[in-house]
Parts: sequence; structure tokens; C-alpha cells
Amino acid sequence: MDLQEHMLRIGKLAREAAKILAKTPTKIKNQALEAIAQQLEQQQAQLLVANAKDLETGQAKGLDSALLDRLALNNSRIANLIEGLYQVLALPDPIGAITDLNYRPSGIQVGKMRVPLGVVGIIYESRPNVTADAAALCLKSGNATILRGGSESIHSNQAIAQCISTGLQLAGLPGTAVQVIETTDRAAVGELIRMDQYVDVIIPRGGKDLIKRISQEARIPVIKHLHGVCHTYIDDQADLDKAITVAYNAKTQRYGTCNTMETLLVAVGIAAQVLPPLAEKYQAAGVELRGCPATQAILPELKAATPVDWDTEYLAPILSIRIVKDLDAAIEHIGQHSSQHTDAIITENWQRARRFLTEVDSSSVMVNASTRFADGFEYGLGAEIGISTDKFHARGPVGLEGLTSQKFIVLGDGHIRQ
Amino acid sequence: MDLQEHMLRIGKLAREAAKILAKTPTKIKNQALEAIAQQLEQQQAQLLVANAKDLETGQAKGLDSALLDRLALNNSRIANLIEGLYQVLALPDPIGAITDLNYRPSGIQVGKMRVPLGVVGIIYESRPNVTADAAALCLKSGNATILRGGSESIHSNQAIAQCISTGLQLAGLPGTAVQVIETTDRAAVGELIRMDQYVDVIIPRGGKDLIKRISQEARIPVIKHLHGVCHTYIDDQADLDKAITVAYNAKTQRYGTCNTMETLLVAVGIAAQVLPPLAEKYQAAGVELRGCPATQAILPELKAATPVDWDTEYLAPILSIRIVKDLDAAIEHIGQHSSQHTDAIITENWQRARRFLTEVDSSSVMVNASTRFADGFEYGLGAEIGISTDKFHARGPVGLEGLTSQKFIVLGDGHIRQ
Repeated sequence: MDLQEHMLRIGKLAREAAKILAKTPTKIKNQALEAIAQQLEQQQAQLLVANAKDLETGQAKGLDSALLDRLALNNSRIANLIEGLYQVLALPDPIGAITDLNYRPSGIQVGKMRVPLGVVGIIYESRPNVTADAAALCLKSGNATILRGGSESIHSNQAIAQCISTGLQLAGLPGTAVQVIETTDRAAVGELIRMDQYVDVIIPRGGKDLIKRISQEARIPVIKHLHGVCHTYIDDQADLDKAITVAYNAKTQRYGTCNTMETLLVAVGIAAQVLPPLAEKYQAAGVELRGCPATQAILPELKAATPVDWDTEYLAPILSIRIVKDLDAAIEHIGQHSSQHTDAIITENWQRARRFLTEVDSSSVMVNASTRFADGFEYGLGAEIGISTDKFHARGPVGLEGLTSQKFIVLGDGHIRQ
Repeated sequence: MDLQEHMLRIGKLAREAAKILAKTPTKIKNQALEAIAQQLEQQQAQLLVANAKDLETGQAKGLDSALLDRLALNNSRIANLIEGLYQVLALPDPIGAITDLNYRPSGIQVGKMRVPLGVVGIIYESRPNVTADAAALCLKSGNATILRGGSESIHSNQAIAQCISTGLQLAGLPGTAVQVIETTDRAAVGELIRMDQYVDVIIPRGGKDLIKRISQEARIPVIKHLHGVCHTYIDDQADLDKAITVAYNAKTQRYGTCNTMETLLVAVGIAAQVLPPLAEKYQAAGVELRGCPATQAILPELKAATPVDWDTEYLAPILSIRIVKDLDAAIEHIGQHSSQHTDAIITENWQRARRFLTEVDSSSVMVNASTRFADGFEYGLGAEIGISTDKFHARGPVGLEGLTSQKFIVLGDGHIRQ
């Protein structure tokens, strides 16, 4: 069987499983999640053996230590993975919820019913935990899943997939509701993102290049999570203490995350007051600061920020600082350089806060809060399959609802159109 | 300037206008709609002159009479067009609406704010009324619009575009908020659907082939309205009178619309009772009936339905009839042949109605109502820019809400992540 036939077969099986999942009651979906969790617990030793194979191959290939770390499973990571399944189990089932059911002048009742998208294709890089996380969210939202992990984690993914498949079957569901692509042939991705008859949406999780390539080649809608160049703007009517606390947290609470602030904008009227104490805190935490000329005038020891800095997602203890004239200039800078992920203003001025909320076109816009809050757990979505920087369909953290659609339902009693 | 440069310039102007529209208050948008309506009224004579040119060219080219009819403007059609603008003016503005604003355990308040998509590209065939309708819906929802009509209606579209542009400027908005592509070069469409830096969504309105081609070539999300192969299933626990009334209405109330029933499915247990009186009514209305062998056994005068019939959108007084064993067989047939537009069941059985609502995967699913109800006005959306047969983003009739997205807003008072 050639690759295309193989992929089409996977697609067809997923489509068939999706039909069954769409009408599976919450109770059965939850039983499946529990059975999968139990399998992962029982198969823990085998998971570690499979993961050891991947790690060995990875070391032989010379993967760097950060990559090897993301690839590694251990007892505590498996426990987290299992905990994640129980968290999804505890979330309310979005499917079947009927909203806005109202009578129309014609006498019919029209409402919307929440339904699964169908088949979700997930393409991800080397973290094996995505296999279980993504499968759980898709299962709970009634979607079949086709997973394509990185070749580095192929054995780990297959071992996890085996647990998922067994768990599904123990709950009376088709094992094909979650399929892991077993070939490491890169052409399989090309096939997956073009099977529009079998796959309803593609979610790529990985680097910017992977996501760009997939977006350009896909024939299927893609929920994109590009990069996070996030801003905090300290307005000249900011409370000084809040400004320092929030801006410090937004950069230093974690460096490697997409919602970490990468550029600090400061109104010229408050710069001389806020920058020296803030710079001291950052420098004490080991953050390298880069500044525009006006910033350097206040903090002469700073390296100059170059134009490239304004568009860079450092994912590291580096921060670029720019002094701007006012709110308009801040919104202008953000409009040009933000990746439309998350941007925040610190101000006590009511009208400026309202303007910032309205005029900044990012998936999360914040007032007097740390950009680090931008994620599914903090927002109360329970879990997230990614953070969409698109506007179409889902925007910001994507939880169960982002994996669903709505159909109209019309209830009548023999009603006809006049 | 070559075509690509020209299109990129249009895109850039649209993006700039979109930024302004996104923060334009409802009052100004409504003033613009009113000013456009007044322009159309004042320029009525010029519109008819421009339209006469298109009709003359069309006749010279030998366009068929149906096409010429769709192309033609007259006083009453212009009045409808103006009336449409006032209807959109009267709709509530969706932009800025904040929902689900709740406190989280961390103390932040998280909600969703409705925002425009940005720039909407609309590609349509020869009806000039789309120019004004689409522009009005996009304007009200805060989006900039790039319109590309058929070459047959180029003069009419430009005349309408002139009124729109003047109306926008009279209300203090950029005339470029709605742009009509003036070149008839077909390559302009190719450019438009690939300008992902400037265009956020493409809405094609036209034949199946146009829409398929655009979906395949676009680099931008497409809201697709494919065809309508709609079904009505008469269950053996249907009320006989309702079944006859609704099935008759679903076929005959109008023939050329996408929500018209094209295939009637009848449970074997009720076929002998319901089909003879229903066939008599259809035949009296001049509807040609085509049946499966079991149908022919009851109505021997019928032509045989061939496999092609089950997948055909007739848009004409033709109906294919199939007798099926039961609800499962009906759902199976619909799953295979429906275009997922609109499907209905006629039954008095509670459980079967609930199963049909859940298991039929179409944009509108109905119980005891005519499929002809599936449209934006009947559903209370006020107006529609199309009916989406996609599941992604918007499904079913697409009104103002389908032209928007949501962003998360986070309100704090110096909150930081722990």
C-alpha cells in the first residue's frame, strides 16, 4: 500500500469513528478517558522503555539537551499526563448544548446546537505529552483525532497511542477514534493537510516555520498558533507600584512561554520615574535590557535596541524597552510589531483603558494585569489545545469550545413557509 | 503599475480603512449607511444608465435570459436595494459586545469582546445588488470590504461603488472602506485570494465551480456556500396531514433556492398512505417525480431515479423519491447524499426527532418544518451574507455575527501570575 492510500485509509477510519463519537453520550466519553488514564498507569513501565529508545536514538543523532528534555518521560511526567486526563474528564461536555432557542414570527423555534468539528488533525513536534492531551480534548469534544508527532518521539507516541486505543475499546468506542500516524515519512504530513474529504481542521503545534509551511500548503482550515511578541505599555497615568510589579512579572515569571512580555513600552511622562527602579529589579533577576535612544538617556548602561528587537520573540531573559510619546504612539507600535497574541496597558485612566481594549487588535488585551495570564487554565477554559493567533473561528486560548461548531435546529409542528 | 502591485495597493488601503472602521462608533456607521442609501436614491438615473450599458454588452455577448434578468436593475430593484440598507442600519451593532465577563480565582476578570474580522473579500457573479448588500453588512460589522463582481456587471457595480464611496465620505469615513475591483482581468481574483497579509476572509457567492476553485487556490480562510441537496424524511410515525403539507411546501414554495427539498425519503411503513395523495399534489403543480423501485411499485407512472439523482441539486420542479426501511436508513442516506445544508424529519415520535436532531450533520436540522425556512431572515439574523456549508467558524446562514470574531479581555488591578 503506498503512502497516499495508507493516509486515505486512516482518514476514512477517522471519519467513520467521528460519526460514532458525535453521538456518544458524555458518560461513555468519560469512561473512555478514565480507561485511558488507567492504561497509562498500568503500562507505565512500557512507556518508559519506549521513551528510552527515543532518547537513545535522539542522543545518537546529537539532539540538543533542551530537545532531549522535552522528549523525556519519567514517573512524574506520566503522572501529570494522567492528571490531565482526569481534568478533561471533569470538564462539562460542550456537545449538544442548545442555545438561543427562540420563537420566530412564523411560529418555528430556532436555536443553535453545539456539535463536534468532525476529524481533527494534530501535527506536533517532540513532546509526547501532546499525544494524550490532544487526544483527550478531542475525545471529550466528540471529535476523532489523527496525530502526527515528531519522528524523535515515535516510540513514545506509539506506546501512548496503544494505551489510548485500548482505553477507547474498553469503553466500547472504536480504537480508531484516535490514530497515531506510524510512518516517519515527512510526506505523510503533506497528505494529511490535503485530505479535505476526511479532515476538518488542522492544529499544528510547534515552531513558527512548521506552522507557516502547514498554513501555506493546507487545503483544510488551520488553527494557527504563531509566535508571541507581547507588549506591556506603562501609561503616564499608571500607578507606579502596579506598573513595576506587573511589568516585572510579565517578563520574569517564566521566560520560555509565548505569553511572556518581550517589549516594554513606557510613556515619556513616566519613564524617568518608572524605569530606574524597574531596571534594577530586572537586572537583579539577570534580564538583559536593550533600549531605544530615549531609554538609553535614562539608563546609559543599556545596549541599544535595533529594529530587529521590536519584532523578536526572545523566549529568554532579554527585554527591549522603548519610550513612546503617548497612548496613540503605543497603539501604533503594537499595531506594527505585536504578533497579536497578548498586549497589556498599565493605567489608572478610564478612557485610555477603554481605548486600549478597543483599539488593540490582539487575541488577549489586558488592563493592569500580567500578560502571563493568557492561557486556557487561567481563563477558566479548563485546558487548551493551543492559543490561536488567527481571528477566524477561534481566537486566543482554544479549549473544548474551539474544537466545536454549531448547527441551527428548527422545531415546528407542521410549519410551512408562506 | 502591474496587476499584483495594483491589488496589493487595494489590500493595503483596505487594511488601513479596517483599522478605522474597527473603532468607529455605531452612530457613524449608521450615518454612513443612510448616506449611501440617499446616494443610491439620488443617483438612480445614473445607475440605470450604467446598468443599460452592462445589459447591452451582455446581449451582444449572447448571455442567456436568466442571466440578463439577474443582471438587470430597475426602479423597484433599486428600491429593494435601498430598503436592504435601512434594514442593516436597524440591526444591532455586534461590535464591542462583551460577554462571559467573570472573575477567576486569581482575581482577574476575563471576558470576550466581539471584534471585526478585518478585511473581507467578496467574489460574486452577476447580481449587482450583492455590491450594496455585502458592503452594508461588512460596514455594520466594522469590516473593510473588497468586492469583485462579475465582468458582466462591471458598470453597474462601479456606479453603485461610487455611491457607497461618496456615502462613506459624507459620514467622515474613508471611501476605501469599500472598494470595488475595477479590472475585469480574471487574474485579479487569484491575487485577491492570496493576499493573506491584507485580507482576512473570502466569501465567494456564485456557482459550485467558482466556489470549489476559490477554496482550492485560496491562502485565506473561505466561508463556503456550496450547493443545497436538502432532504425531508417522512417517518412512519408522522402525522399524515403535516407530512403532506410540509413536504409539498419544501419542494414547491420556490424551486430555484438552495434550501428547497430535492429528495424526499419515506419510511416504508407509511409510503402507501402518504405517497399517492402527495404525488397528486406535486403533479398538479407540475413537479416531475422520479422514484426508486419501491416507489415505482406504488406510483407505477414514475420515471426511475438513477444514482445521479440522489446527489443532484435540481433547482427546478423535479423531485426524487426513495422509500427507506426506517430512521437509520434515512440518516444513512442523508449522511451519504446530503450537501449538509438543510435536512428535515416529519414525525410525532419524540425519540426519533431527538435522534434526527443529534445525528444529522447538516447546517440546519429541522423537525416538522419546511426546509424553505433555512435563511437569515427567517432565523432572525436580520440579513445574511450567505449560507455556510462549512463547519469551521460559521455554519448555516451567516449574518453580522459570522463577520466577526472575539478577543479575550482581561481586567485587573495590578494582578500578577503566581
